[in-house]
Amino acid sequence: MGLFSKDIKTLNDLFVHTLRDVYYAENQIVKSLPDMIKKASDPGLKRGFKVHLDETQNHVARLEEVFSMNGVEIEGIDCPAIDGILEVADDVAGEVDNKEVLDAALIAAAQAVEHYEITRYGSLIAWAKELGRSDCASVLQRTLDEEKATDRKLTEMAVSAVNLHAAS
Amino acid sequence: MGLFSKDIKTLNDLFVHTLRDVYYAENQIVKSLPDMIKKASDPGLKRGFKVHLDETQNHVARLEEVFSMNGVEIEGIDCPAIDGILEVADDVAGEVDNKEVLDAALIAAAQAVEHYEITRYGSLIAWAKELGRSDCASVLQRTLDEEKATDRKLTEMAVSAVNLHAAS
Repeated sequence: MGLFSKDIKTLNDLFVHTLRDVYYAENQIVKSLPDMIKKASDPGLKRGFKVHLDETQNHVARLEEVFSMNGVEIEGIDCPAIDGILEVADDVAGEVDNKEVLDAALIAAAQAVEHYEITRYGSLIAWAKELGRSDCASVLQRTLDEEKATDRKLTEMAVSAVNLHAAS
Repeated sequence: MGLFSKDIKTLNDLFVHTLRDVYYAENQIVKSLPDMIKKASDPGLKRGFKVHLDETQNHVARLEEVFSMNGVEIEGIDCPAIDGILEVADDVAGEVDNKEVLDAALIAAAQAVEHYEITRYGSLIAWAKELGRSDCASVLQRTLDEEKATDRKLTEMAVSAVNLHAAS
């Protein structure tokens, strides 16, 4: 879909466009997580990022399934939103000179990523239902549930050990 | 704070850095909302964006209050995350050739913005509490509550009139 064309004419077009946005985003997250795993100090946080890397690879596979269910080509489109979110994560991590504070910054960065995904999957699921594609909605819902669970785990970490060490 | 310096040494430094990130973001949102108001067709959505513009101006004022409470200079720092989220919103809106589908796209874009703010305010509040600044946490919580309420209203709109028209 070209940048200055008017290619989105129906809700289904918007659904496919957003599927491609999220597909690009999930693939960028797969590339970024190894660096976050390396930077994390807290063993629980490091382990959590590793688990989430496995999950994210599953999310990519599920999106490919939804592309196939819709009979459209599997492809991503550049998404400056996730690029920007990951750039902020990287910039901030580069400025932190204390490993506990770095953990706190990594948790916040990961939560910004999760929230971008939560909102995108939320829209995709609402649209799939409107379009009578409850089959697609149900595949996407499994990913949304995992993203929300990851966000909750990160919140628990943020208010427990990691931040308490950083404040001291 | 310089890009390649290591200026974030404490949780308080991270708090102030993130406050500046959100301050820039809120100001960019104030600039973007008039265009979203203009593009929206559904009267309820148009009205909702107008109310949110007033709220966002209040959020800017509240952040200035928190800067003052911390005795630090009121300033924003470039935030590629919100720039990217707003760029995606603008790109997608430019590609839609149907007013009901455009409303659906605008709702999704606004929810991506809300979720960025929700996650940032969530981190700021957790850190303020760790730092023993429940006074700052309570000012920021008022904004977080409004962002969450706006997100809920947008979800209600997304699953009601706007999307049903777009699918037909």
